[in-house]
Amino acid sequence: MREAFHDQLDAIFVDLATMCGQVETAVNRATASLMSGDAAIAEEVISADRAIDANRERVEDNAFALLSLQQPVAGDLRVVVSALRMVSELERMGDLSVHVAKIARLRVPNIAVPESIQDTVVKMAETAEDMVRRVKAIIADRDVEAAIELGRDDEVMDQLRRKSFAELLGDDWQHGVEAAVDIALLGRYYERIADHAVSVANRVIFVVTGEQVSRADR
Amino acid sequence: MREAFHDQLDAIFVDLATMCGQVETAVNRATASLMSGDAAIAEEVISADRAIDANRERVEDNAFALLSLQQPVAGDLRVVVSALRMVSELERMGDLSVHVAKIARLRVPNIAVPESIQDTVVKMAETAEDMVRRVKAIIADRDVEAAIELGRDDEVMDQLRRKSFAELLGDDWQHGVEAAVDIALLGRYYERIADHAVSVANRVIFVVTGEQVSRADR
Repeated sequence: MREAFHDQLDAIFVDLATMCGQVETAVNRATASLMSGDAAIAEEVISADRAIDANRERVEDNAFALLSLQQPVAGDLRVVVSALRMVSELERMGDLSVHVAKIARLRVPNIAVPESIQDTVVKMAETAEDMVRRVKAIIADRDVEAAIELGRDDEVMDQLRRKSFAELLGDDWQHGVEAAVDIALLGRYYERIADHAVSVANRVIFVVTGEQVSRADR
Repeated sequence: MREAFHDQLDAIFVDLATMCGQVETAVNRATASLMSGDAAIAEEVISADRAIDANRERVEDNAFALLSLQQPVAGDLRVVVSALRMVSELERMGDLSVHVAKIARLRVPNIAVPESIQDTVVKMAETAEDMVRRVKAIIADRDVEAAIELGRDDEVMDQLRRKSFAELLGDDWQHGVEAAVDIALLGRYYERIADHAVSVANRVIFVVTGEQVSRADR
């Protein structure tokens, strides 16, 4: 019984890592559409989100089957519920990538991000993507050390977000209200992707060690 | 056994309705701080969030105890997991109210929302608060009809958000970038509160009828 439980749980974690890979692609392509103003890439991100949603349903069904058939208690039960939460967060990260792609699409054939602030926005995007890539490995390897490290690096995104606000609200800003609003919302989306990445990593720590990692809410 | 299960489940739903009442207060007070520029009210919202978080832990503990002790399967299992998801969403709605309060606090002694757009922002805030109030009753009464109606009314928030963008990005906007960025983010926070309200209402429909309500992702 215990062995069957762990085999099924492993299968769920394989699916979660796969989903995380899909999210990584979504973040990458959303940023590509944003920085190129290419509507086709934006549409691709928006369409591909259906595959992430389908995987969510699959993982949820498997997790419920595991709960029903194996009737885990105590720690095992919390691990399966953690997996259900991870799947919700990964789906949400996909949705946030779609939001980025939709801002890109809205400004086609222009590029939503003015040149003077592209460096900061690209760094936010790369930070988010890098965090998602690391979470994929953290899930696949149940790597607690890497998960702890990810939580520490979250500060980078906060700094970039502050930097973007300083640029938007500075006297030098010459790109008007529309671009500023786009950048503020894009920053929010990338920040939320990073927040969810840390949260998923913290759930991996819990799954492996049984220790809850609390952190400030965003 | 079944009776014990339903008694414990009822107790969880009482706690969820209580939490929803706390969220309603948070939305109300956050809006009050925003529209008055009163730092003390903003601080009150930020501090009060701890009580929402504490209630989340309590409901989670009770839901896990229920799962461990009663070992529900199939539909009953999904109902308890739904309750766990509702509690996460209610906590998140509290966090979003804190975000509103923090924008208010950032602009003290000024008021973040310029007079020309106050009407639209107040309507967004009232819509969000009204939806939270209705969800509280929907949870308490397991009211499927009211839950279906709430999903339909969600369109109001979309219209208000579009209206706010039209105002921000119109030629008449004379309040600069900072105010525009604040309004865009405030709109996002109120919209997310409304989204979560609909999602919680949909979970009540599932709990009562066993039917999943799907909706477009935000």
